[in-house]
Amino acid sequence: MPPLSRSFSREVRGEDGDGGGRLHRAPPNPSDVKINVEGAFIVDDESPFSETKNGAAGEGVYLENKDIRLPHHTAVVSHVAVDIGGSLAKVVYFSREPNSVLEGGRLNFLNFETERIDLCIDFLQQLKQKQLKLNGSTPGQLCVMATGGGAYKFYDRIKEALGVEIIREDEMECLIIGLDFFITEIPGEVFAYSEEEPMQFEEPRTDIYPYLLVNIGSGVSMVKVAGPRQYERVGGTSLGGGTFWGILSLLTGARTFDEMLKMAEEGDNSGVDMLVGDIYGTGYAKIGLKSTTIASTFGKVFKMKREAERNAEDGEGLSHADSEDDAELAGFRVEDMSRSLLYAISNNIGQIAYLQSEKHGLRHIYFGGSFIRGHTQTMNTLSYAIRFWSNGEKEAYFLRHEGYLGAVGAFLKRQPKNWGRRNSLEDVDLHRLVSWREQAKASSSKAET
Amino acid sequence: MPPLSRSFSREVRGEDGDGGGRLHRAPPNPSDVKINVEGAFIVDDESPFSETKNGAAGEGVYLENKDIRLPHHTAVVSHVAVDIGGSLAKVVYFSREPNSVLEGGRLNFLNFETERIDLCIDFLQQLKQKQLKLNGSTPGQLCVMATGGGAYKFYDRIKEALGVEIIREDEMECLIIGLDFFITEIPGEVFAYSEEEPMQFEEPRTDIYPYLLVNIGSGVSMVKVAGPRQYERVGGTSLGGGTFWGILSLLTGARTFDEMLKMAEEGDNSGVDMLVGDIYGTGYAKIGLKSTTIASTFGKVFKMKREAERNAEDGEGLSHADSEDDAELAGFRVEDMSRSLLYAISNNIGQIAYLQSEKHGLRHIYFGGSFIRGHTQTMNTLSYAIRFWSNGEKEAYFLRHEGYLGAVGAFLKRQPKNWGRRNSLEDVDLHRLVSWREQAKASSSKAET
Repeated sequence: MPPLSRSFSREVRGEDGDGGGRLHRAPPNPSDVKINVEGAFIVDDESPFSETKNGAAGEGVYLENKDIRLPHHTAVVSHVAVDIGGSLAKVVYFSREPNSVLEGGRLNFLNFETERIDLCIDFLQQLKQKQLKLNGSTPGQLCVMATGGGAYKFYDRIKEALGVEIIREDEMECLIIGLDFFITEIPGEVFAYSEEEPMQFEEPRTDIYPYLLVNIGSGVSMVKVAGPRQYERVGGTSLGGGTFWGILSLLTGARTFDEMLKMAEEGDNSGVDMLVGDIYGTGYAKIGLKSTTIASTFGKVFKMKREAERNAEDGEGLSHADSEDDAELAGFRVEDMSRSLLYAISNNIGQIAYLQSEKHGLRHIYFGGSFIRGHTQTMNTLSYAIRFWSNGEKEAYFLRHEGYLGAVGAFLKRQPKNWGRRNSLEDVDLHRLVSWREQAKASSSKAET
Repeated sequence: MPPLSRSFSREVRGEDGDGGGRLHRAPPNPSDVKINVEGAFIVDDESPFSETKNGAAGEGVYLENKDIRLPHHTAVVSHVAVDIGGSLAKVVYFSREPNSVLEGGRLNFLNFETERIDLCIDFLQQLKQKQLKLNGSTPGQLCVMATGGGAYKFYDRIKEALGVEIIREDEMECLIIGLDFFITEIPGEVFAYSEEEPMQFEEPRTDIYPYLLVNIGSGVSMVKVAGPRQYERVGGTSLGGGTFWGILSLLTGARTFDEMLKMAEEGDNSGVDMLVGDIYGTGYAKIGLKSTTIASTFGKVFKMKREAERNAEDGEGLSHADSEDDAELAGFRVEDMSRSLLYAISNNIGQIAYLQSEKHGLRHIYFGGSFIRGHTQTMNTLSYAIRFWSNGEKEAYFLRHEGYLGAVGAFLKRQPKNWGRRNSLEDVDLHRLVSWREQAKASSSKAET
């Protein structure tokens, strides 16, 4: 497998040179770095990189086509940020516009499978070498802001490969800083979802606290945010994107997340789910359960396997027995399984998020993380769950850059305070409400191994 | 397949005769039926039926070996109760002691796969024919108390087959009546679980309200109980026993629930689960996540499949490609998958139950339903989850007859009021707090089909 596909490496093509050794270098003084977000907007189709930024760019790499233009930012930016999660490593970096017609620059977004961290490191290496062309800094000045578990797990490896300063930042804090930035500074970023109007955008605003962040990656974290950098991980669940990928990969043979989501779109969950109607023959009106309500995810498998076994016994003897497993797996549509699991995981997260928001008195619920991927079924299910459980009193909010909260937060940690228009990143470390006792509850589950 | 195995049919062997037609017959006046629970106790090993009651009695039938002896009950009981859920049909009936040495009689418990409802109907037919021998009533007097979704779905079929009165009772109400009975009347029934002391029995008591019932069958219902027959289904989840069975049956080829639980006992969930340590290389102490905390259920599958693919590409070419799916499925131990899913479903139910108990101010949480089956890992995980989330302030309670709450409730609906020692079944229908608006929230999930 080539380390980077052609279209992918084209993006960071520029002057060669440097090779800058592996010595530690002092990063630029943070107070020198100011990002001007005035007039920031999300680039949709007219990106000059658009031909190179359209989804997968080689195995294990995904380029986003939704850069954030910063038309008034001209200063040098010599750092990149990476948020290395259990399944994906998300990268955010700044680049000047490639031709001089446009002023300023843009934030670029891409991710790598964590399993291919080697590709990610190669990419950072290339960024380092193209630094002058990209953002005006000199090669070797690169500073890597790193967060997520991989910032610890791969610290030595990245440091050795790049020979630059790696600054590690707390994962939860970065998530919050990133989300605060998106809510307060970027128009067209935050939206509510409904089938009738898929993207009802929220205007950037400053009175954002308190809120609940539900970050859905491989696993799920739920974070109560009371003010700038005042946060507490109140819960989570291990049933997240990794569960969806893992079970479907084993059941269906699908190899990518997008393939699985595509299957889910074409599936009918009632092919594997036991509905209330399957149990009652009708609804259970007395307690408000419709006949189409899902009673048991994958609950129909039991019934149908037993039926198939009986048919085999009664009618055709054991002729099916040899290939039983294949036949049974084939007997259920992979599309139906995908849809069932997507519903189950989204519904479950929705219910827990609602209950946590109730427990902590939070009206606004933001859903982030790479599981969502702008997928309409996922957002529809999460939105429905929040409206359903709250009797319409609460609303789910989504983000265009939902997978990059932590990476953007780490990127912004390199900022002087008060750089944003709305002071959303005011330094309030002294007031940080980190209750250690409460945080001990943070584990979404335990392991008895 | 024989309709009933030998050991199974032996249990209801008795005088033949009757054949009692299919006419409707008026059931005995309920006020004639009084069950004397004085001195009731659970029979463990010394059952005169013990050789016939030891688990599966033929395909699709399961006999319990934990009858409840009613040493002082001598009156005729001419009804049986059946609770027909999505996967299992649970039967409770009374029988006199088979020899005259012992006074009184006992409650008997068994279940059928709902898919084999024909076996269940056969069994009820046999009970009807052996009625005189079993309980002193005349053949044909049988009355069937039915609850669960199948009481509606199979109503016509059962009625036509048996030709007796079928009285349908509300499922939630029966669950609560059954649970109240067990808590207040039966010593050695309710217990808390811990690894050190697996069964810490609770004494029967009367001040039991309010409490939360979490009933785990194919799906999961959570019911807030404020007083006798004052209940409200406050939530639930579609991730229940049916999900465990369905996914594992497809992944592992296991054919019975007990086989799956056995596998789980021998598994190590870290073979498929992504732990915090897999992401961080260590714990995430700042927010209280240990390195062994489960971050993502089945989350390791992604990583390991990618790794296997790369190895195949880098080293051995495509030699594995032909049998890729089988190899990958085989690459993960079925035992590990079983344990992972058991943990995930139990943890998830535990967290939601805790959050619901918080929202509704309930200190006692009772877990019932056929998913539990007295399985120590399940109870340990549920107990741990409740203690963990509540900081040790709440406790999970289990029942020896956890799968029979609804069936026992339906059985007892045939009782005159105040029959129990503690009046636990006092008729308070007038005060029933059934809030219809609240109940509209009862659906554990929605279906978009």
